[in-house]
Amino acid sequence: MGGELLGDPEQLIHGLNGLEEAGPGDVSFYGNLRYRRQFEASRASAVLVGTDTPPRDGVALVRVPNPHLAYAKLLALFHPPSRPSPGVRPGAWVHPEATVHPEAVVLPGASVDRGASVGARTVLYPGAYVGEHAGVGDDCILYPNVTVRERCILGARVILHASSVVGADGFGFAFNPEGAEGPEHFKIPQVGIVRIEDDVEVGACTCIDRATVGETVVGRGTKLDNLVQIAHNVKVGPLSLICAQAGVSGSAEIGTGVVLAGQVGVVGHIRVGDLAKVGAQSGVAHDVEDGQVVSGSPAVPHRDWLRASAAAGQVADLLKEVRALRRRVETLEKEKGE
Amino acid sequence: MGGELLGDPEQLIHGLNGLEEAGPGDVSFYGNLRYRRQFEASRASAVLVGTDTPPRDGVALVRVPNPHLAYAKLLALFHPPSRPSPGVRPGAWVHPEATVHPEAVVLPGASVDRGASVGARTVLYPGAYVGEHAGVGDDCILYPNVTVRERCILGARVILHASSVVGADGFGFAFNPEGAEGPEHFKIPQVGIVRIEDDVEVGACTCIDRATVGETVVGRGTKLDNLVQIAHNVKVGPLSLICAQAGVSGSAEIGTGVVLAGQVGVVGHIRVGDLAKVGAQSGVAHDVEDGQVVSGSPAVPHRDWLRASAAAGQVADLLKEVRALRRRVETLEKEKGE
Amino acid sequence: MGGELLGDPEQLIHGLNGLEEAGPGDVSFYGNLRYRRQFEASRASAVLVGTDTPPRDGVALVRVPNPHLAYAKLLALFHPPSRPSPGVRPGAWVHPEATVHPEAVVLPGASVDRGASVGARTVLYPGAYVGEHAGVGDDCILYPNVTVRERCILGARVILHASSVVGADGFGFAFNPEGAEGPEHFKIPQVGIVRIEDDVEVGACTCIDRATVGETVVGRGTKLDNLVQIAHNVKVGPLSLICAQAGVSGSAEIGTGVVLAGQVGVVGHIRVGDLAKVGAQSGVAHDVEDGQVVSGSPAVPHRDWLRASAAAGQVADLLKEVRALRRRVETLEKEKGE
Repeated sequence: MGGELLGDPEQLIHGLNGLEEAGPGDVSFYGNLRYRRQFEASRASAVLVGTDTPPRDGVALVRVPNPHLAYAKLLALFHPPSRPSPGVRPGAWVHPEATVHPEAVVLPGASVDRGASVGARTVLYPGAYVGEHAGVGDDCILYPNVTVRERCILGARVILHASSVVGADGFGFAFNPEGAEGPEHFKIPQVGIVRIEDDVEVGACTCIDRATVGETVVGRGTKLDNLVQIAHNVKVGPLSLICAQAGVSGSAEIGTGVVLAGQVGVVGHIRVGDLAKVGAQSGVAHDVEDGQVVSGSPAVPHRDWLRASAAAGQVADLLKEVRALRRRVETLEKEKGE
Repeated sequence: MGGELLGDPEQLIHGLNGLEEAGPGDVSFYGNLRYRRQFEASRASAVLVGTDTPPRDGVALVRVPNPHLAYAKLLALFHPPSRPSPGVRPGAWVHPEATVHPEAVVLPGASVDRGASVGARTVLYPGAYVGEHAGVGDDCILYPNVTVRERCILGARVILHASSVVGADGFGFAFNPEGAEGPEHFKIPQVGIVRIEDDVEVGACTCIDRATVGETVVGRGTKLDNLVQIAHNVKVGPLSLICAQAGVSGSAEIGTGVVLAGQVGVVGHIRVGDLAKVGAQSGVAHDVEDGQVVSGSPAVPHRDWLRASAAAGQVADLLKEVRALRRRVETLEKEKGE
Repeated sequence: MGGELLGDPEQLIHGLNGLEEAGPGDVSFYGNLRYRRQFEASRASAVLVGTDTPPRDGVALVRVPNPHLAYAKLLALFHPPSRPSPGVRPGAWVHPEATVHPEAVVLPGASVDRGASVGARTVLYPGAYVGEHAGVGDDCILYPNVTVRERCILGARVILHASSVVGADGFGFAFNPEGAEGPEHFKIPQVGIVRIEDDVEVGACTCIDRATVGETVVGRGTKLDNLVQIAHNVKVGPLSLICAQAGVSGSAEIGTGVVLAGQVGVVGHIRVGDLAKVGAQSGVAHDVEDGQVVSGSPAVPHRDWLRASAAAGQVADLLKEVRALRRRVETLEKEKGE
């Protein structure tokens, strides 16, 4: 990790865990003063810490610039990913006109439809489906029961978690009062695609709809949690984080490095600026400027929301107070008139 | 489209796109004054417009009664859907006692269980499952990894997007303080079905639970977006639109032509009347009358919600103001007494 | 049911239904005074009622301590579950190093990966996937397109509804400003598991993420509805009910017998105490004590929330009132000065 060791270099480490769960032989990390109590009580043999943490008795400290990142890298070293051996397994279905790289893995029950292509070292688990003329890059993982619909494009190192759906039809209808059998919602064909750039991760049961025309885009290195909804023609910039059960409506634009917390909703045709942050359960109805932090439904600047939330509980008391004041003013007015 | 052309009838059109994205050779549409700026700046060669739009230089206009609908119909003309050739493919599983119409398509990895039936020209993608004695009508599409549980019934032209689930057990339990192994939530068998009428579309990862007894119903021509929850014994009327991540609790009734915006919640055993509209993220706790527009959590008439939302940010200031007023009244009262 | 019959013991019953839907020959139940009107109007031939319900003409009453529970048990008697005959079907994929109990059922299109085990009488529907070294107990049902990822553990009598996902990677990243190709969200390997105890039911499209290190746990007899999100390292105690579209963030702890209503969000690293209840759409940002009832976003004691909700609609009027009062006080002050 390139850190500075304060403690016994012979100490043997055989596992990793959180400060509270770690025991002898484990390494943990401490990167946030909020967890100071847990750090001081930890039974870990070694702890990755910031560069200014003072030494402590009975525990080896490894000073690094970013303890959380160092911990993540150590975890990856301790748990190298296992990849099944390459090849198309019996029980998989690959259309004769599809192209599967010889180093790719297509497990039993996975499907690659006509004209589709699957890159090197990519793994398709059982139930994963790659639609007609779709393209999946190198080193991707499509977990079980993932759907990638026709013509959608995935970059390299994309991870699609189980039951996620890329490229379902956008939700677009034109009301037709005079359909053949009476009024109808006439289906607007959704003829665009989804394009997912390199290093994107898509959570379980997350849905990214294809564009009506053109592309729905998820930018490089962006991570979507589970059960997220990305509607047609949305553009999500690179390096954003969209937490579980958040939803982004059609044609909205999410900038670079944005964070949408859990259960957030963003209406259509607006822009959430670069590095903006949106608090959990917020409803964003208007553009959010670069770097802004907003909360609430409808969302307002976070500071205003905190103030309004605190005040909201006092309205009932305020009603009483104002009623009492009115009576007192009436009394004063009457006395005046006398 | 039956429209009136203002412009060059020889103009060649080879694609369609939105006003901002369209270029030479594209046709677009302009049906809402909100987009006037984009209309005036558009580089489209032709635009579908309303019947009262004045002619413009350099762009062919096609006047139609409903530009959005005409655009949708043009899109369908430009992009005729492709349907795989009929038949049960090797790698599909059809129970010997199931009935699959000879013009239906059952792709590898799709399953049709005992006693089920699949109509003419219906397509089952890999991973689609039709349970025992379930019935799927003509011209349906079941995208990959769709589940239709036992005895559920689908009409004609129903589209089920990937990973949607029709007929999972409703969430029903009776608390039993004296179970064999201690207290338990005793599972109430969910022995009813789901019935989906003609021309319904169900979004990806959307769940429609079977009734405890009787039927959960989604009416003709209704469209459900992605990640929607429809609980047991709910009745959704025809021609309604339920947007992404909305949820309807058990035994609630949603009328005809209702719109539930994204992330709306509707409690159980209530009715949302015909043509009602519910704003995004609202929580509907009581009956909504026909034609009413409601918003907020708990939901109130939309006008009241707008007023309350605007006022909510002013409570903190109001608190200050009232405190100041109280002091002034006290001063007046004291002076009075002197 | 061990009840006391008031009425004709020769009465033949051939079905069950709700009070409003039941007809002659049906038995229904009446356990809540809210439904008294429906009880009195019911056409059911027999009704399961509480022990203090007086006899009624024309309908047989069966007095039991818990009519809802008795109804559930009767439903189960009338609708015994059907289980496919045991065995691994052709078209299923079982890894040679997996262990499937001879009384288990593995239907076509289901998969059991290397080192996994499947218990007695457990049924895997088409598209169900059991990952490497995962363990599924006895008498479980894995509905179509369910995913159980590697090393996760399911107890006995667990029901996983269609498209649910157990053990997808938790949403964990460490921001690395100096990645090989620029800034990146470095993926924290999620090397823990999910452990699901006996008698748990998991709804359709519900996601339970594996722990970063250690275990995500869902306790004995707990029931999760559809589209629920349980993040990494969450511990849900026994006998809790989590309704549709609710989400629990990382490392949160949900106690015993808790009820989270629909669309609730719980932030990470907090505790919702035993027997606590959280109202629909609430956002829980802080610990909830045992037995507490909370509502709102942010959540507050339910009583305070009712009061605040009622008051919220009056703020606009309050603003007017205070403005008027201010003018009256100003007048009084001026007159004073004169």
